[in-house]
Amino acid sequence: MNNKTTLILGGARSGKSSYAEELAEQSRFNLVYIATGEPSDEEMRARIDHHRDRRCEKWETIEEPVDIASVINEHSTKDTVILVDCLTIWTSNLMFKEKCVQEAGAKLIIALRNAPGPVLLVSNEVGQGIVPQNALARNFRDEAGRLNQRLAAVVPNVDYIVAGLPLSLKKNAKIVSGNIER
Amino acid sequence: MNNKTTLILGGARSGKSSYAEELAEQSRFNLVYIATGEPSDEEMRARIDHHRDRRCEKWETIEEPVDIASVINEHSTKDTVILVDCLTIWTSNLMFKEKCVQEAGAKLIIALRNAPGPVLLVSNEVGQGIVPQNALARNFRDEAGRLNQRLAAVVPNVDYIVAGLPLSLKKNAKIVSGNIER
Amino acid sequence: MNNKTTLILGGARSGKSSYAEELAEQSRFNLVYIATGEPSDEEMRARIDHHRDRRCEKWETIEEPVDIASVINEHSTKDTVILVDCLTIWTSNLMFKEKCVQEAGAKLIIALRNAPGPVLLVSNEVGQGIVPQNALARNFRDEAGRLNQRLAAVVPNVDYIVAGLPLSLKKNAKIVSGNIER
Repeated sequence: MNNKTTLILGGARSGKSSYAEELAEQSRFNLVYIATGEPSDEEMRARIDHHRDRRCEKWETIEEPVDIASVINEHSTKDTVILVDCLTIWTSNLMFKEKCVQEAGAKLIIALRNAPGPVLLVSNEVGQGIVPQNALARNFRDEAGRLNQRLAAVVPNVDYIVAGLPLSLKKNAKIVSGNIER
Repeated sequence: MNNKTTLILGGARSGKSSYAEELAEQSRFNLVYIATGEPSDEEMRARIDHHRDRRCEKWETIEEPVDIASVINEHSTKDTVILVDCLTIWTSNLMFKEKCVQEAGAKLIIALRNAPGPVLLVSNEVGQGIVPQNALARNFRDEAGRLNQRLAAVVPNVDYIVAGLPLSLKKNAKIVSGNIER
Repeated sequence: MNNKTTLILGGARSGKSSYAEELAEQSRFNLVYIATGEPSDEEMRARIDHHRDRRCEKWETIEEPVDIASVINEHSTKDTVILVDCLTIWTSNLMFKEKCVQEAGAKLIIALRNAPGPVLLVSNEVGQGIVPQNALARNFRDEAGRLNQRLAAVVPNVDYIVAGLPLSLKKNAKIVSGNIER
């Protein structure tokens, strides 16, 4: 795995996508954007267009709702940053299509390990509100949280974004401010 | 902008208001409290009274649901701390009255820049739960998150409060633990 | 209070229980697990079994939905780590049985003060989503948040878990990265 591969976590409208794009653009590498969102309605289309407008022509954009591992395999080079935005939409796509999220997650981790260049993975924190009333939402919350944990355990860098500002949770594979070794 | 102006973020019942009051009271400055909440029902009145009781007579309280920029302009002096509690209620007031939140945000930022004394801005983190089912709540979440990002980008200090304990995200205009420059 | 007593906060599926168990197992002390969950349906039973399977036979498990203070009083020794999982379910048990959460919290704090060995308290962050629509959920959110604040104020260590990674909020009774003293 490339030592700049990073998981970028944050709530809705936390600025995690802008942060990830900024991180990628600083690299002067080729820029590939994997958009996992499928525009199912006007609101969704507006959100996708809003994101696309910000990236301008510097990026190659690939829309892939499900098989992001293959896109990473095909496009990663040592001079390319791949940004996946976002894993939470991807999780909901997988669930909607009745595919196993954790199996897809294992395949993603293999792709990350094999990728010569950095991959930036944007993902939502969705577990800090009240327990959702419907079982589907609880199940989604479990799958999304479990995936975040698995990825955070294997990637070398994890940033948590609040109001556009990063808190580093893990950097170069060291846990930043925890006291597990206490 | 005063170099002690601070954005104080946190969830519901995270202790962000108490933290902000403590920060203000340590200054030995004059204390002005801008309450943005309008008591629309008994529950809301109880919450407002609960906050007011804690502040006692040390504070001058001004109830202003919308035009907080003008109140800051009028009351800020180099010996006065102004505490705005909170921007999330303010956002919902603006939306309810069909005013543009981002325009009001721009006006607030101008007031912060011109204020000779420190302003403490209390605001809620609302984007870390499951996607709300109704469009109004999603829209509110977007507006509130976007406002937090804009303010966090311009103020010199940002604290994130969890269970009454602060994590510094930005201090004297330096990002505390992020690795954007990596 | 034992100087290793720790409050472990995090969202749903943040990895807080695994983190707490790992912390406890590193101690080489006797391990006592207080499970506050009552299996009210199949989903709940599955979650409890999932947790229990992970702990294997290294732990003594005590199911106690309400009176965790007494269990701590009875079982704490200087060679025993007690893990309470979790305070959020406990809060909802208390509310369901119409008991006062803050009174029970005061009793818990006395038990923590008297305990010769470390106690690890797992608790959910539930206040970072949109305001819940029903009053009971708002009330629950208030009680849970208030309890977290009270405990965070008195215990020597507080960790906040995001995607399985810890951020230390307080360590050996010092606030880690806040700027309250600024």
